[in-house]
Amino acid sequence: MTRAVERGWVVVVGLGPGNEALVTPEVTAVLADATDVVGYIPYVARVAPRPGLTLHPSDNRVELDRAAFALDLAARGRRVVVVSSGDPGVFAMASALFEALEAGPQLWLDLDIRVLPGITAMLAAAARAGAPLGHDFCAINLSDNLKPWSVIERRLRLAAEADFAMAFYNPRSRARPEGFARVLEVLRDACGHERLILFAHAVSTPEETLRIVPLGQASADMADMRTVVIVGSSRTRLIERPGPPILYTPRSVPDDGV
Amino acid sequence: MTRAVERGWVVVVGLGPGNEALVTPEVTAVLADATDVVGYIPYVARVAPRPGLTLHPSDNRVELDRAAFALDLAARGRRVVVVSSGDPGVFAMASALFEALEAGPQLWLDLDIRVLPGITAMLAAAARAGAPLGHDFCAINLSDNLKPWSVIERRLRLAAEADFAMAFYNPRSRARPEGFARVLEVLRDACGHERLILFAHAVSTPEETLRIVPLGQASADMADMRTVVIVGSSRTRLIERPGPPILYTPRSVPDDGV
Repeated sequence: MTRAVERGWVVVVGLGPGNEALVTPEVTAVLADATDVVGYIPYVARVAPRPGLTLHPSDNRVELDRAAFALDLAARGRRVVVVSSGDPGVFAMASALFEALEAGPQLWLDLDIRVLPGITAMLAAAARAGAPLGHDFCAINLSDNLKPWSVIERRLRLAAEADFAMAFYNPRSRARPEGFARVLEVLRDACGHERLILFAHAVSTPEETLRIVPLGQASADMADMRTVVIVGSSRTRLIERPGPPILYTPRSVPDDGV
Repeated sequence: MTRAVERGWVVVVGLGPGNEALVTPEVTAVLADATDVVGYIPYVARVAPRPGLTLHPSDNRVELDRAAFALDLAARGRRVVVVSSGDPGVFAMASALFEALEAGPQLWLDLDIRVLPGITAMLAAAARAGAPLGHDFCAINLSDNLKPWSVIERRLRLAAEADFAMAFYNPRSRARPEGFARVLEVLRDACGHERLILFAHAVSTPEETLRIVPLGQASADMADMRTVVIVGSSRTRLIERPGPPILYTPRSVPDDGV
């Protein structure tokens, strides 16, 4: 019996926010079956080396190159895992992979490509604080590398008008430290100074810190590149108690509307 | 050395969308340490019985009673896990627990209460289809048990104006089969007939089905109580290929805006 080149595959996985107890067994199993792991340096560093597994760490800001590299490896018969933190479908590698797929050679369309979900940062942060995303909410990537500021501001104002709770990814970066201060100004204008905001830093890791303040007391330096930010809806409440306070949004909206 | 009553706790956990390979090790570990499991019948049925563990399955629509029951057990020194499907903080038991906590006796505020995240249905569905939530998005609970229709319609229109992708939980129920048809009408009006919509039924289980159509071809009977629905943004695309098509939203918005 002859056999052609082993059929390769690409699986894009989410490693969750940092704690290994938040990695799903499905992701652990596919990593055990891979020949190659591709991803941003700190995420690849979370995968244990073993014989037969080649690690390909790469710098950030090269998502499309990294995605094309993974697809090319799979086309050569390798079993490739692309690692993201959190969930790969939320502001992470899955969309980049599909952009590279569309731009690439026709033969890549035959590849076995899958996405495996993970615990995304906003849901890990929400769980640590209580349940601020327990009612309708939105998720916005504040990185303006990929969209103009005008789109961000417009979305912030419409989300406030809809009375969504809001989760923000990439609130600050070295490239645009001033952007998040403008976000806070828009939010204070649209939601008022009493609205609650959560800064969740390095959730699920030993460096985790949570801070909840009214918008009037929020400042841009409360967020860094490892922070996910959640702004409550008009109904989000704080339960004070002997331990850390609980931030949550009730399930219902009264009949008189938002 | 004398010891008072064992200190109880309540942990609200997410079991993910159905497949046991999507339950995090953190959740598995806390279930192994529990004395009591409280939750809606089909979710409690996912927990294996063992000596020393009491299962308390209850009917749906009694979230607040169930939450108060769990808090009371913990106050008596029991180690209680409240089970949700998906993520407990997304339209599930975490907010109900905190509502019960606020309405209950003062002594409950001293309890050890935690929430452990899970893979929520929209992210499992998105991963199976590709990456439709790869750019800014919102999540809306379409159940009008807990909010008036006017709020739902307003949020749909504002989300469309913001050009969010949208994930809908509880699109249909026996109590209001007509509601989802109205949702589809509003979406066609706000987003046009070409906008892509995904119906993801029983994701990650043996009964899983995925269906992607333009809004113009969508009908209310494509969703049932086990369906999560995702509507793309104006930029969400379909990649046709020999296997199942891929639905994804690119990471960027061009400079001319939405």
